[in-house]
Amino acid sequence: MTATPDALLASLARRLGQDRVLTDPSELVVYEADGSTMHDVTPRAVVFPRGTEEVAAVVQACLANGVAFVARGAGTGLSGGAMALDGGIVVALNRMDRILGIDVEDRRATVEPGVRNLAVSEAAARHGLFYAPDPSSQAVCTLGGNVAHNSGGPHTLKHGVTVNHVLGVQLVTPWGEVVRVGGPDRPGYDLLALLTGAEGTLGIVTEVEVALRRIPEGVRTLLASFPDVDRASAAVSAIIGAGIVPAALEMMDDVVVGALEAAFGFAFPSDAGALLLVESDGPEPGLDREAADVAEVCRAHGALDVRSADTAAERAEVWTARKKAFGALGRVARHYYTQDGVIPRTRLPDMLRHVREVAARHGLRVANVFHAGDGNLHPCILFDEDDAATRAKVLEAGAEILRHCVELGGSLTGEHGVGVEKREAMALLFSESDLELMRRLSDAWDPAGLCNPGKVLPMGAGCVELSPRARQAAL
Amino acid sequence: MTATPDALLASLARRLGQDRVLTDPSELVVYEADGSTMHDVTPRAVVFPRGTEEVAAVVQACLANGVAFVARGAGTGLSGGAMALDGGIVVALNRMDRILGIDVEDRRATVEPGVRNLAVSEAAARHGLFYAPDPSSQAVCTLGGNVAHNSGGPHTLKHGVTVNHVLGVQLVTPWGEVVRVGGPDRPGYDLLALLTGAEGTLGIVTEVEVALRRIPEGVRTLLASFPDVDRASAAVSAIIGAGIVPAALEMMDDVVVGALEAAFGFAFPSDAGALLLVESDGPEPGLDREAADVAEVCRAHGALDVRSADTAAERAEVWTARKKAFGALGRVARHYYTQDGVIPRTRLPDMLRHVREVAARHGLRVANVFHAGDGNLHPCILFDEDDAATRAKVLEAGAEILRHCVELGGSLTGEHGVGVEKREAMALLFSESDLELMRRLSDAWDPAGLCNPGKVLPMGAGCVELSPRARQAAL
Repeated sequence: MTATPDALLASLARRLGQDRVLTDPSELVVYEADGSTMHDVTPRAVVFPRGTEEVAAVVQACLANGVAFVARGAGTGLSGGAMALDGGIVVALNRMDRILGIDVEDRRATVEPGVRNLAVSEAAARHGLFYAPDPSSQAVCTLGGNVAHNSGGPHTLKHGVTVNHVLGVQLVTPWGEVVRVGGPDRPGYDLLALLTGAEGTLGIVTEVEVALRRIPEGVRTLLASFPDVDRASAAVSAIIGAGIVPAALEMMDDVVVGALEAAFGFAFPSDAGALLLVESDGPEPGLDREAADVAEVCRAHGALDVRSADTAAERAEVWTARKKAFGALGRVARHYYTQDGVIPRTRLPDMLRHVREVAARHGLRVANVFHAGDGNLHPCILFDEDDAATRAKVLEAGAEILRHCVELGGSLTGEHGVGVEKREAMALLFSESDLELMRRLSDAWDPAGLCNPGKVLPMGAGCVELSPRARQAAL
Repeated sequence: MTATPDALLASLARRLGQDRVLTDPSELVVYEADGSTMHDVTPRAVVFPRGTEEVAAVVQACLANGVAFVARGAGTGLSGGAMALDGGIVVALNRMDRILGIDVEDRRATVEPGVRNLAVSEAAARHGLFYAPDPSSQAVCTLGGNVAHNSGGPHTLKHGVTVNHVLGVQLVTPWGEVVRVGGPDRPGYDLLALLTGAEGTLGIVTEVEVALRRIPEGVRTLLASFPDVDRASAAVSAIIGAGIVPAALEMMDDVVVGALEAAFGFAFPSDAGALLLVESDGPEPGLDREAADVAEVCRAHGALDVRSADTAAERAEVWTARKKAFGALGRVARHYYTQDGVIPRTRLPDMLRHVREVAARHGLRVANVFHAGDGNLHPCILFDEDDAATRAKVLEAGAEILRHCVELGGSLTGEHGVGVEKREAMALLFSESDLELMRRLSDAWDPAGLCNPGKVLPMGAGCVELSPRARQAAL
């Protein structure tokens, strides 16, 4: 019954309607890459199913024709996870964007996978509720993508990542069946945790149920400036060591500070070598004490200035400094390549020295943004040329930084995922026996090898070639 | 190379030493059952390995001889999960009970699987730290068993269950390899979440790394009595609805109240039909307000009395009422059979009416203990005869209660696991397609079917026959 690929496209057009099957090369360009700096791969086609049954039909048709498929949300991913390798098709879910229901009493929302992250909190706000995980791309990125990457955000430190907030999903399995995974106190194997962060390699999520939280009664936001990252890092360790769990603990280095000043005219103390954003939230009682404790710790560790953002407008301005940090880098360099690594929080100063040493050795500049509380760093390697020689240096510097993260007892990725970019680097972190556990699972669920192939697990084929294009992507 | 089973035992004796291989029937009796009310199954043998390498050697020997194996900790499980079916051997881990290290700065402990739950908190206490999940059996039960069952406890409501606190494990896979699973920001599939709660069917954990938390700065414990469970349940909903997240929210009904009065001479208001234990913990600021808010909600919902336990001794007494509730039932009945179901919290009053109606129809009495905040109920069916007719009624009543939990949108088990007892009931909650996902996984990881067989997944062979023996087991 195996038909030719053309027969697949014809059958999909019959099933979905011709206008929901893109095959024109000029239209496919948009789907060649995600927000990362990968080589482009043109998909065979892009299809836009309208619901679970249509997604299942697409998967079944792909299976019948031996064609690979990959789900895609807003395409804001940063590891090439939504690229259609092996001549596959893209199953675009961004038009499946309905909020199916909000249950105020039980504090949960049921949404289609193409719903934007921020849209959930916007819809829940009038009930005093919000959806906690907040990737910096939250205005654009989708819940389906968040589930695939187990996305976090600046408030991960206190509020956790996607897996802590997903209650259940509807899934089209790699063999084309529709199942429900999750629910209250699910006995048996925790398949929901397994699917969350599986980067779309274990099926396509077509409905997501998430927990909502009460909007915190109060918020205190502080922006502290330090002479250097060492002292800011020591303050981070001291804050955590004091038993304080801020909602967010974000750090930016002097290069970012300079870029922010150039781009937005922020007035930081002229010798500020690092900024630390500390946010506390929760019930009002205790918040003032927590903020005062944080300020005191910062000053004791050499803060030049501790500014409290007392109004909503001031808070928005402080968060602008953090959220536009990547955008501001455009003022100091034409291009940048962002790494995503994790280290034990206490090793931040060591790591930063390493990052700078690596960059200097390759003749490159680097700007650093950290989710400091989580030990998650985003060194952005700046460069002004995209000729092959510079590109190779940038990639080598990125790889060196990543290897050092692992050497320090950290990890390959905090939140951007493995995708294509880091699949070979998985061998730095996992033994062959460790990887065998994952391969058995992947083989059992996707025996045809058609569900987002070429991602997450090493192929043993050496590193994928990267094309570091300039990205001003939301991060 | 397949040897006879006797050859297996001989080879295990050579590897471990004869004193670490029990085969004498009089010694095997202890290992016939766990804390549940199952039929006894005599294992072929019980072995006591002394470390990861020996566990791996045992697994490899079992594989070579086609003999099943099951890990066992303290045997406090309540679903028959540690029973050696299919003529298998028990791999007893309770002597692997060393605390391997406590890292105060990073707040983690590394322990062998036979370490008792409470021993971790005891060892961490001098650093101001504790291990949060606190099953009522915590003085006895082991970390390995906690990982297998993803155990919770009264403080689950705020502090989460085992999966929220396990950072990594060393695992002997069902095919006899030693791997590490977990670590900071693990990319790829979340195998740690998968293993946690897999009830020992995906390998044997030989080392566990857990997160420790700071001992809360302050605690407030209230014991409120209500005329009936309906009003206590309404108070529970109102407390949660007010945005308060107590550390614990435990309820007991009038039968339990009577038993506690008879057993320990507690003086509750004479018309108390339900007790509600509410504990708040955290930083001191805010705790008094939270306790006052809880007390006010309780009074507004008809509390007869709200007692504050202000000293450590008073708190211990209040917790005695909760933790000895099961023991106290011995004063009002010779035997009891405990069910473990979950319902949406708001359905507690409906569910309780159903429980009583079912019990009355079968001519049985029932006592109820709830983790009310989680909607997790433990109806204890009381009976004074263990003749076959009564036993059948008790089991039928238990099954009816469980079915109703599922009908109300709840679940089969809150914390006791599926094991043997509820494996056929899994079909109430999961479709064949849903179960197929789990079977593929189990088949991929345990192709020989020798790693704790006969647990978790339905065999399609009808219900396992139960023997409701009286248990005064820690719960």
